[in-house]
Amino acid sequence: MDQDILKELLIHLSKGEITVEETLERLKALPFEDLDFACIDHHRSLRRGLSEVIFGEGKEVSEIIAIMERMLACDENILVTRLSPEKASKIGKRFKGCTYHEKAGMLTLVSRRIENSGRGTILVMSAGTSDIPVAEEAVITARFMGNDVDTIYDVGISGLHRLLGHRDRLMHASVVVVVAGMEGALPSVVGGLIDKPIIAVPTSVGYGASFQGITALLGMLNSCAAGVTVVNIDNGFGAGYAASVINRT
Amino acid sequence: MDQDILKELLIHLSKGEITVEETLERLKALPFEDLDFACIDHHRSLRRGLSEVIFGEGKEVSEIIAIMERMLACDENILVTRLSPEKASKIGKRFKGCTYHEKAGMLTLVSRRIENSGRGTILVMSAGTSDIPVAEEAVITARFMGNDVDTIYDVGISGLHRLLGHRDRLMHASVVVVVAGMEGALPSVVGGLIDKPIIAVPTSVGYGASFQGITALLGMLNSCAAGVTVVNIDNGFGAGYAASVINRT
Amino acid sequence: MDQDILKELLIHLSKGEITVEETLERLKALPFEDLDFACIDHHRSLRRGLSEVIFGEGKEVSEIIAIMERMLACDENILVTRLSPEKASKIGKRFKGCTYHEKAGMLTLVSRRIENSGRGTILVMSAGTSDIPVAEEAVITARFMGNDVDTIYDVGISGLHRLLGHRDRLMHASVVVVVAGMEGALPSVVGGLIDKPIIAVPTSVGYGASFQGITALLGMLNSCAAGVTVVNIDNGFGAGYAASVINRT
Amino acid sequence: MDQDILKELLIHLSKGEITVEETLERLKALPFEDLDFACIDHHRSLRRGLSEVIFGEGKEVSEIIAIMERMLACDENILVTRLSPEKASKIGKRFKGCTYHEKAGMLTLVSRRIENSGRGTILVMSAGTSDIPVAEEAVITARFMGNDVDTIYDVGISGLHRLLGHRDRLMHASVVVVVAGMEGALPSVVGGLIDKPIIAVPTSVGYGASFQGITALLGMLNSCAAGVTVVNIDNGFGAGYAASVINRT
Amino acid sequence: MDQDILKELLIHLSKGEITVEETLERLKALPFEDLDFACIDHHRSLRRGLSEVIFGEGKEVSEIIAIMERMLACDENILVTRLSPEKASKIGKRFKGCTYHEKAGMLTLVSRRIENSGRGTILVMSAGTSDIPVAEEAVITARFMGNDVDTIYDVGISGLHRLLGHRDRLMHASVVVVVAGMEGALPSVVGGLIDKPIIAVPTSVGYGASFQGITALLGMLNSCAAGVTVVNIDNGFGAGYAASVINRT
Amino acid sequence: MDQDILKELLIHLSKGEITVEETLERLKALPFEDLDFACIDHHRSLRRGLSEVIFGEGKEVSEIIAIMERMLACDENILVTRLSPEKASKIGKRFKGCTYHEKAGMLTLVSRRIENSGRGTILVMSAGTSDIPVAEEAVITARFMGNDVDTIYDVGISGLHRLLGHRDRLMHASVVVVVAGMEGALPSVVGGLIDKPIIAVPTSVGYGASFQGITALLGMLNSCAAGVTVVNIDNGFGAGYAASVINRT
Amino acid sequence: MDQDILKELLIHLSKGEITVEETLERLKALPFEDLDFACIDHHRSLRRGLSEVIFGEGKEVSEIIAIMERMLACDENILVTRLSPEKASKIGKRFKGCTYHEKAGMLTLVSRRIENSGRGTILVMSAGTSDIPVAEEAVITARFMGNDVDTIYDVGISGLHRLLGHRDRLMHASVVVVVAGMEGALPSVVGGLIDKPIIAVPTSVGYGASFQGITALLGMLNSCAAGVTVVNIDNGFGAGYAASVINRT
Amino acid sequence: MDQDILKELLIHLSKGEITVEETLERLKALPFEDLDFACIDHHRSLRRGLSEVIFGEGKEVSEIIAIMERMLACDENILVTRLSPEKASKIGKRFKGCTYHEKAGMLTLVSRRIENSGRGTILVMSAGTSDIPVAEEAVITARFMGNDVDTIYDVGISGLHRLLGHRDRLMHASVVVVVAGMEGALPSVVGGLIDKPIIAVPTSVGYGASFQGITALLGMLNSCAAGVTVVNIDNGFGAGYAASVINRT
Repeated sequence: MDQDILKELLIHLSKGEITVEETLERLKALPFEDLDFACIDHHRSLRRGLSEVIFGEGKEVSEIIAIMERMLACDENILVTRLSPEKASKIGKRFKGCTYHEKAGMLTLVSRRIENSGRGTILVMSAGTSDIPVAEEAVITARFMGNDVDTIYDVGISGLHRLLGHRDRLMHASVVVVVAGMEGALPSVVGGLIDKPIIAVPTSVGYGASFQGITALLGMLNSCAAGVTVVNIDNGFGAGYAASVINRT
Repeated sequence: MDQDILKELLIHLSKGEITVEETLERLKALPFEDLDFACIDHHRSLRRGLSEVIFGEGKEVSEIIAIMERMLACDENILVTRLSPEKASKIGKRFKGCTYHEKAGMLTLVSRRIENSGRGTILVMSAGTSDIPVAEEAVITARFMGNDVDTIYDVGISGLHRLLGHRDRLMHASVVVVVAGMEGALPSVVGGLIDKPIIAVPTSVGYGASFQGITALLGMLNSCAAGVTVVNIDNGFGAGYAASVINRT
Repeated sequence: MDQDILKELLIHLSKGEITVEETLERLKALPFEDLDFACIDHHRSLRRGLSEVIFGEGKEVSEIIAIMERMLACDENILVTRLSPEKASKIGKRFKGCTYHEKAGMLTLVSRRIENSGRGTILVMSAGTSDIPVAEEAVITARFMGNDVDTIYDVGISGLHRLLGHRDRLMHASVVVVVAGMEGALPSVVGGLIDKPIIAVPTSVGYGASFQGITALLGMLNSCAAGVTVVNIDNGFGAGYAASVINRT
Repeated sequence: MDQDILKELLIHLSKGEITVEETLERLKALPFEDLDFACIDHHRSLRRGLSEVIFGEGKEVSEIIAIMERMLACDENILVTRLSPEKASKIGKRFKGCTYHEKAGMLTLVSRRIENSGRGTILVMSAGTSDIPVAEEAVITARFMGNDVDTIYDVGISGLHRLLGHRDRLMHASVVVVVAGMEGALPSVVGGLIDKPIIAVPTSVGYGASFQGITALLGMLNSCAAGVTVVNIDNGFGAGYAASVINRT
Repeated sequence: MDQDILKELLIHLSKGEITVEETLERLKALPFEDLDFACIDHHRSLRRGLSEVIFGEGKEVSEIIAIMERMLACDENILVTRLSPEKASKIGKRFKGCTYHEKAGMLTLVSRRIENSGRGTILVMSAGTSDIPVAEEAVITARFMGNDVDTIYDVGISGLHRLLGHRDRLMHASVVVVVAGMEGALPSVVGGLIDKPIIAVPTSVGYGASFQGITALLGMLNSCAAGVTVVNIDNGFGAGYAASVINRT
Repeated sequence: MDQDILKELLIHLSKGEITVEETLERLKALPFEDLDFACIDHHRSLRRGLSEVIFGEGKEVSEIIAIMERMLACDENILVTRLSPEKASKIGKRFKGCTYHEKAGMLTLVSRRIENSGRGTILVMSAGTSDIPVAEEAVITARFMGNDVDTIYDVGISGLHRLLGHRDRLMHASVVVVVAGMEGALPSVVGGLIDKPIIAVPTSVGYGASFQGITALLGMLNSCAAGVTVVNIDNGFGAGYAASVINRT
Repeated sequence: MDQDILKELLIHLSKGEITVEETLERLKALPFEDLDFACIDHHRSLRRGLSEVIFGEGKEVSEIIAIMERMLACDENILVTRLSPEKASKIGKRFKGCTYHEKAGMLTLVSRRIENSGRGTILVMSAGTSDIPVAEEAVITARFMGNDVDTIYDVGISGLHRLLGHRDRLMHASVVVVVAGMEGALPSVVGGLIDKPIIAVPTSVGYGASFQGITALLGMLNSCAAGVTVVNIDNGFGAGYAASVINRT
Repeated sequence: MDQDILKELLIHLSKGEITVEETLERLKALPFEDLDFACIDHHRSLRRGLSEVIFGEGKEVSEIIAIMERMLACDENILVTRLSPEKASKIGKRFKGCTYHEKAGMLTLVSRRIENSGRGTILVMSAGTSDIPVAEEAVITARFMGNDVDTIYDVGISGLHRLLGHRDRLMHASVVVVVAGMEGALPSVVGGLIDKPIIAVPTSVGYGASFQGITALLGMLNSCAAGVTVVNIDNGFGAGYAASVINRT
């Protein structure tokens, strides 16, 4: 689109319909409009193939609503992350059709049908029960971006045979997101079984020397299994997003 | 192959050619042979589609040679990482056809032709001149695994127009590996331009509060650009490997 | 048990009662059943000689109750760790016979008589009054696993003669668990007096540069007394469990 | 003023109006008066060209009021930082003319007209919406110190074209304050575009491995763009103050 | 210059001398040329008013020479930082007129006369004798960029009267760079005496809990004196550069 | 006293009044009695010249009361540290004559007259208003231990002349306790003025990169002024205690 | 022995052969003799059942020899840890019968036959080839202390089937020492298979964010497998020692 | 002395021998002379009762010699710390009468007889053999400053009876310096035995999680024994200096 507008502009210039100076001015002014507190880039979804995602934490409800109004005016689907139930409830009253995903703390508002754009199934695994909220963040993100998602929860590495029982589903996946807290060793074990892209998500689950996820993060970065890449602690959204991009590659 | 051997074994049992006890014994003994200092899994390349990679650091030349002999007997291509020129020289004398990649500190020995198995081009970028050795590690790994590789070096973010000049090659890549030290901000900037899988590699380049790559690592994990995943500091090999796996997905 | 089922399966095959394909299928399906949120492995207590322990923190009451129901159906004794009084109260209403250990934040439900399986007495010591909750976690765990337990509380190293007064009980123990916060030096002092396995548990007691137990943890890892091993900060359960395993060795 | 009083004193001595001993005594006693809990230096604004600033956090309302009374008696303008709405409300009832800046958590009381003392415009930028409170702290401080201030909010680096659209305003500024959390890369990008003094302010915005602003702080300290200097995490006041001092240089 | 070339291009288009497609192509290709290992931006000195600086550490002599040749062809003055005497000696043989500043580990090659562009004097202070190399880095950088520089070395805070003896020179400076290791308190003390922009440079001087400059860095970031901004550990160059930019503001 | 009892015991033995075996038994049993949750060593005040101090944090009111009852039975003066107003109020109802020092969070109960045992005056200084609670902890401790105490509060290093105005009182002190948060530089400055024992107390006052007192702690440990020793963050009690011991040396 | 000497002394006293004062004096003087640089406690091996171990690092050859001479005079077996080949060679020339274990950097001198004092076999496992030196330290220590030792090297978790192939030997061991660098996940996996005491030894093997073993250490402390205890980084000796103590319990 | 000169100046003024302006000028110029690289304050030893100490690390031999020449001209005793044998040898050739203390890495040159200025004996203890160099630094410093010094080396806490055997000498000391690496627990144990000022010195002795002395430092800061204060890692000089100041109090 940028391309088109730019081309059109140059065509106008080449036809003498606008001056060189005007062209220069408009070249600078083109791409976006300003909001008081948040610049939304409507062309982003076109350029990047995805809608803007709203990071809910630290934003006031009024700010989120203002951004959503602009996006709806552009007919975009909306995903809000890290949103408390209280905020979600207020937003839900303002816009029809919102779905709040409580475990994941996410809100979606889908007005344009989501088309399946992935090549295969994204598998999201969690090591423990307490890691599920972060795993769900990845699941909802990946579905929002048009992927089939499978989940296997609570398969810690201290019970290897549990994991081995899921081998088929592991083999079937095109991308695997592995969510784990504590020592964060599950991605290494999974990486030893399959040869698919694995995105590891450390969680802040644990206590004492788990240091709110740092131990899991470090463990994953040092994984002895090649092919494992890592995202920020508790960043289920980022993992789901990256998995989606990989699944479309 | 495991599958086949297992099936064959069970067929023997079903035909009464071996006893249940013998079957049990052989089930356990099947998959691998033992070396004094390093178990090589010959079936690994079949199972995972890739040869075993030898991590050279901390291994003695004699150990590396022993592993290589086993692998050559199985007709496997060989990649040794983190190998000093001294060790490489000794190994090169023992085996014909070795190539030593000095910048990357890697040795390859390709006896079986590498077939192109990637769907697109892997682009490897480096922020500074000093990041090139790590970037080269990714390049050689990706090529060894059968990928087309493009490179753009020395495109730091403090000169934005430099980066923008390479937009076409960015758009053309199927996976991008971004190598950067110091504040590690290049992946975020690249992530704002394209919507491809981006693997960020922090390097230990810098001084003072760069803390041997920790600053770059943290910066990349906190990237404001979704779709970015991260590997360990200076882990060019891991990035090249992960990029290859993604490129085959 | 796995062994038996596997053998039985192979016998069926050898007798031609099932096909090779069926055998393969059932080999994979054997070992465990799935729960929505938590896989319980009923054979675990048989295989490992211990029941599953439920980590209460971060689990909802409904999740804990569901796991407990499954375990009770298998006639297993139950130990829930890191359980708040509120949750314990709700669980106590659902199941008869629960005991809540408030200091330790643990709940036990013993339906099968606990047999004494240890060879000697496990001694649990605490350096200060504030370390007692963690010490109690170790005590209850060790008792739950069938051990005799002795306790000596509040014997800091700044009053050496206090400690020396307990020498006899130290000598009598087969395994010693030493719980300490602040500088965590008690295990070293105890290790200088006796030659028994010592499990050191750092606690988050202290302020300022105690860093929530990191100082005690580091002190213990650097103990000048050989024979000291360490568990995670505040991990009384882990220490009690390890002591029990050692006491059965 | 010190100079004057000192000179006067010496003149008195030279005229024999006071003795050497008296002079010595008064030399020591001269410069300030004592308050029970806070010494205010009335001559400070004269000596340094600025009024004393009251750091509100950790001070009780009664303490703040007492300091303000002394300052008002000296006819000084007042700026209180890190002040909660509750405290501000109580203070507002005690003194007429207070303005509370809620986003920034600052209170100003301007009785003496603020004269414009800066040579150019100070531009304050924020990377995200959540960084605005810290940015506002810088804005209010800079205005309180007599500067023209321009603001550009929510221009993250993942959307480069947004930033480039503001090039003119960047060029126009004499000093730029850049506020950013997460990976803190915006100052580097801005530093690549202009050649003005840039003061980078890391914020505690983010989660997981952002470590309450440490990642942003380290990123900024390692900026590949020369000319960037850094202040403490969330220290919008310090940045606004330093920018003002630079703008008067 | 970019502006001019762009304008020229558009004029060509408006006159019909080139087509829209050609214009688009050349718009992308315009701004810089590629080197194998380092892109030098010749227009940088024009755009930013400064020559490119070569970071010598981690670059091979041949790489540095190649960059220097390009720059000399453009008639630029050259500053190489973090250069060992060995490398400097080799470079000095290749180019006439190089000056190597041993304490600072810097090489300058000045072919175009440096014009004084600063408004006042930059004062560089060091707390201890061991901090002088970093201070010298700042001095040479500031002089290279056309500033008058004054220096006061070895004025630690434990001898306050030493510092007070230099008050006049402090008052006279327009910008002050304060270099200090160990606890890094000198900038706070200086900041209490004057009201000029102060750039604090922590050094890695010290031992034990000085942690290679981290203690000094943290001390400076937490300075109780407003107006102090900080650069990376041992980053004398960055401080000199920032001081120069401020001195031209 | 131990000595006496021991001697007496040996005399009994030498007189044949008890057997060797009895002597051995009683040698072990001698020195202290056991409490359920806290062993109090009544002889401690005799042996060490000081009463036991009760660390109030993390102890329940009933525990503190039980310890106090034992101590009162031995006619000892009592000092409880880190005690909340709520707990203090309950304890005050149980024992007559308690004094609660709210700023310091300490409770004293003095039944035996405190005799002045120090050789000189202990001076307690604080850098800021917010450091006063920690300073008060030192003051009350030192007074409880029989010392004359002088205080100078709110003398930060950014206003040097303030500090210099108190030179006489500095000279007059026999031991100086310096309490400071943020960069913690005050002890260095004081150490440059006088040659008395200086005990530095870092406080958790500050924000961002003050890291709850770590910055101040590190700064003090790296003080360029010899003669400065350091205690734990916020440990006013420890500083007051150490100052008292020094004052009696 | 202490007991006996003490008893004898008291008998002398009871018989009137010595005075009370003499008894008191000799009670203090009894237990040990002084060396200039290292106090060796000859009764230690009797009291603790083990000889003194000499920590070789940081001691000069002459110091080690002096200690060895004393120990040999007492007919003790000798184990020196962390000894370089150079030092070992010099010591070997001084004493006959020394054995130097190069991989482990240990020297043993066995003059008294080592009796097997363990109840079962100690199994020492290593995750990678580079972890073997640390594992060997544990092996030699355990053998020196009279244990049967089995070893399984190079069984990383990324190849699960390798590990499963060794199940029988795992089951057979009475204590297991697991040595691993990088993410340190092997102990968790082993802990999921067996229910024996597991001592985890983190190694400094790895690069980047392995932080010289910190990542492995943290991973092991956070192991999801109960029964795992941990020793210091690279502390193979401590693990072998603790395993021996457990094996004798 | 400052006082006298100042008084003299004022007398001149009062007598009209100099003008007010001259007085002002000379007031500023008075107190010290400048050296190129190191300001030596000759009056320091008078004002503080101690000579200047030269920190040898990072200073060149020529710089040290220049400082020593100035000090000798003022007839001062000289102590150089952290000096390598190579530098010491060169300095020894330049000045007669130098003594180099190799273990401590210190050089002394005593031209003026050291008078005993301490009230009692300073006792310096070390936990291990490897801590002796740091302990010796304290010993030589304390002796240089006119104190009687006693030493007890190699008394780790894992052999309590060793320590108890030295009780008398502990009781006899007026100040105790305790030097320890690894877990750093010795000061706490000593603090439980005596009630004297204890200065704890952490050393960088240890490996793995001793983190070059951080563990010992943290342990000492968190000591459960009141009266313990701490200096920087390996700072034997600082401890000896502080002990001397206390011993003169």
